[in-house]
Amino acid sequence: MKTLKTISGGITAPKGFLASGVFCDIKRLGTGKGSDQGQKRDLALIVAEVPAAVAGLFTTNQVCAAPVKVSAARVNQATARGIVANSGNANACTGKVGLRDAEAMAAMAARPLKVKPNEMLVCSTGRIGVPMPMANIGRGILAAAACLSASAESAQHAAEAIMTSDTKVKEVAVEFKLGGKTVRLAGICKGAGMIQPGMSSTGERPAARPLHATMLCFLTTDAAIESRVLKAALGESVANSFNRITVDGDMSTNDSVIILANGLAENPVITRGAARCRDLAAFQDALNQVTLQLAQMIVRDGEGVSRFVTVRVTGAASYVDADAAARSVANSALVKTSWCGGDPNWGRILCALGYSSAKIVEDKVDLGYRRSGDAKILFSLKGGQPTRASFQALCQRVAAPEFELHINLNLGKSSAVMYASDLTEAYVDFNKGDVSNPATLGG
Amino acid sequence: MKTLKTISGGITAPKGFLASGVFCDIKRLGTGKGSDQGQKRDLALIVAEVPAAVAGLFTTNQVCAAPVKVSAARVNQATARGIVANSGNANACTGKVGLRDAEAMAAMAARPLKVKPNEMLVCSTGRIGVPMPMANIGRGILAAAACLSASAESAQHAAEAIMTSDTKVKEVAVEFKLGGKTVRLAGICKGAGMIQPGMSSTGERPAARPLHATMLCFLTTDAAIESRVLKAALGESVANSFNRITVDGDMSTNDSVIILANGLAENPVITRGAARCRDLAAFQDALNQVTLQLAQMIVRDGEGVSRFVTVRVTGAASYVDADAAARSVANSALVKTSWCGGDPNWGRILCALGYSSAKIVEDKVDLGYRRSGDAKILFSLKGGQPTRASFQALCQRVAAPEFELHINLNLGKSSAVMYASDLTEAYVDFNKGDVSNPATLGG
Repeated sequence: MKTLKTISGGITAPKGFLASGVFCDIKRLGTGKGSDQGQKRDLALIVAEVPAAVAGLFTTNQVCAAPVKVSAARVNQATARGIVANSGNANACTGKVGLRDAEAMAAMAARPLKVKPNEMLVCSTGRIGVPMPMANIGRGILAAAACLSASAESAQHAAEAIMTSDTKVKEVAVEFKLGGKTVRLAGICKGAGMIQPGMSSTGERPAARPLHATMLCFLTTDAAIESRVLKAALGESVANSFNRITVDGDMSTNDSVIILANGLAENPVITRGAARCRDLAAFQDALNQVTLQLAQMIVRDGEGVSRFVTVRVTGAASYVDADAAARSVANSALVKTSWCGGDPNWGRILCALGYSSAKIVEDKVDLGYRRSGDAKILFSLKGGQPTRASFQALCQRVAAPEFELHINLNLGKSSAVMYASDLTEAYVDFNKGDVSNPATLGG
Repeated sequence: MKTLKTISGGITAPKGFLASGVFCDIKRLGTGKGSDQGQKRDLALIVAEVPAAVAGLFTTNQVCAAPVKVSAARVNQATARGIVANSGNANACTGKVGLRDAEAMAAMAARPLKVKPNEMLVCSTGRIGVPMPMANIGRGILAAAACLSASAESAQHAAEAIMTSDTKVKEVAVEFKLGGKTVRLAGICKGAGMIQPGMSSTGERPAARPLHATMLCFLTTDAAIESRVLKAALGESVANSFNRITVDGDMSTNDSVIILANGLAENPVITRGAARCRDLAAFQDALNQVTLQLAQMIVRDGEGVSRFVTVRVTGAASYVDADAAARSVANSALVKTSWCGGDPNWGRILCALGYSSAKIVEDKVDLGYRRSGDAKILFSLKGGQPTRASFQALCQRVAAPEFELHINLNLGKSSAVMYASDLTEAYVDFNKGDVSNPATLGG
């Protein structure tokens, strides 16, 4: 894994991409009540100046939002020209009207850009079950199209416009070489709550199925890559990044990851052919690093999150077992509240392993902690038995805002990782909302 | 379903049972630090004056506590004489020493009672992974044996002694007729956190497997019933009561339900035979009502719980689907926090249905609310579309401390129910504990 050069410029850092983000008052109208959102941007436009190879993965929730239905069909095309996305309204559970609205949104964006409606992808995030305020969306799209630019400021406006309960803009841009040419890859994303994506490009649920975010991620690159190859590369990177995170174990109706690759870097086109194999590996590596960084940003900025925990399960009898064990621990209310308290409660962890669908043998389990920067894992259990590690020493590990939990089941050779958060009073407070002010009610 | 006569007297209301509950300082020693538990009773003894038919169901967590291992083997016997139980220490994840301690606890209780060690069952609840303070347990057992009585006060002491984070004593006693004889059935239980039992008598997980409490329930009856029949009857009642509740979705290492039936009511012995069929039905009905009442008490007194929600799923394609759909909604962090806020957020509910393993067709789902006492369900969705019910009217339903959520999937004829709680800041605060005072750290 090569270290990539991080660059500024956000989603428009790669050649030939324009972006913008504007305020068109979607949330206030969506809930029909006053809002504390002020002039927060809520509509983003991302446009490739030339047709771009496209790939996308979407939620496997059986109840999926109208824009997911529209975009999932369009990423099967070889190319696309852009993405229109809004926050404040998920356009989910909105029936036939919602579907018409999602298509209309794409068509409205296509017009000023002079592209075909089906070359535009569409994404939404926000409250479920509220009709889209289409007049505002229309005005927003016109305003956004009028201020499209390749500036870092415009890129940041787009990143702001997709935020919901996020407290921070999430953007990454990197630069690397392919066949002697400088290639750039960038991405923005949003998350915060309803986070445990399980995305697929085919509608088939992943073999090791997550239980339950809206997360949106848009990636741009000027790499030249075949559409088919791009789709496979995105699938691999999402499996190891966004599909490995959990905030609250709830899988959203709107999770979407979309990449556009416009080829303007003029590298030799990446194909499945053996000659380009090294280039494909380099591109995959860059994509993996960017998506993992973005995915981890989502957990760190999750609703009410005070600790970021990497749960590493090794020694499982199968990958399905490793995944089930890691998810069971990462989603246990009792384990997550113990992390919130800085309590190295290995009893709750063993308990969550025991009720998972993974095969566990209590007296084989090793369990330990490591802070980022620590050379060694401090084990609290070896072969299911408490070690001599002191409670205080274990507490020190778990008191860190970021630490790793290592679980070796000692039953086989399979492993899995989950990036998880703790469960805090702030999460509950945020998500219970205030029914007297529907603008506070989340998705 | 007949209305049973509720009587006083708790666990010793049936003829021929004695009980006691004492303080022997288990928790303080268990955690090695000072405690705010004061003189809270922590050791209970329940004894049948004559050998009693016995049945029991235990957690299906692969990591199960030592007392579960010991008692699960002993309920296969036809008869037993009593139960010794403690709070403050779960004797879970304690290895071979834990197993020896559980056996020793039963043997210590058997001695003053002049019964065989294997006629005593043993249960524990409390912090996981801490060795049992056996000297204290020994002193506690002697004290408890010395003050055994059939008084209502002693019965209440036993009920108090099994409490951990429970705020209320949970006891029920009823009276009914079998073959002209007056029969009594009584039970005590404890719960509060780590609550989503999935118990079985065979170690086989139930077909519709719950994900994830310590709950303990001890039942006594003076009914005369064959051991084989009693085991089947308890299995049926637990499947429809304790295995239908969830507080936090965590299945404990220690869940146990045990019943003792000493036959002193002198009713004609209930057997599988056709002649006794009506008596069996009457006994089953009484057992179902008592276990359901006790199970619901656990949810109402769950850690930090402010709302008790009955989730009724109907119209599922199969029972497994109905169960999966009900559990997915009942365990969703976002749905549970919306209940805490009194928010009738059907979007989150549809979302949780959509990521469950149950088959869902979004535009077929009906969803509505009913408070206890309401004649009609107020539907917020019909065929996946919002009804004209106002947000305010829906809020009124969800503002009630107890309400029913009705979900009709309209895909088949199967149904399932879950008794669930909301997720509150108080739950998080309680379970994060305070590492500087280990006595505050939960199981």
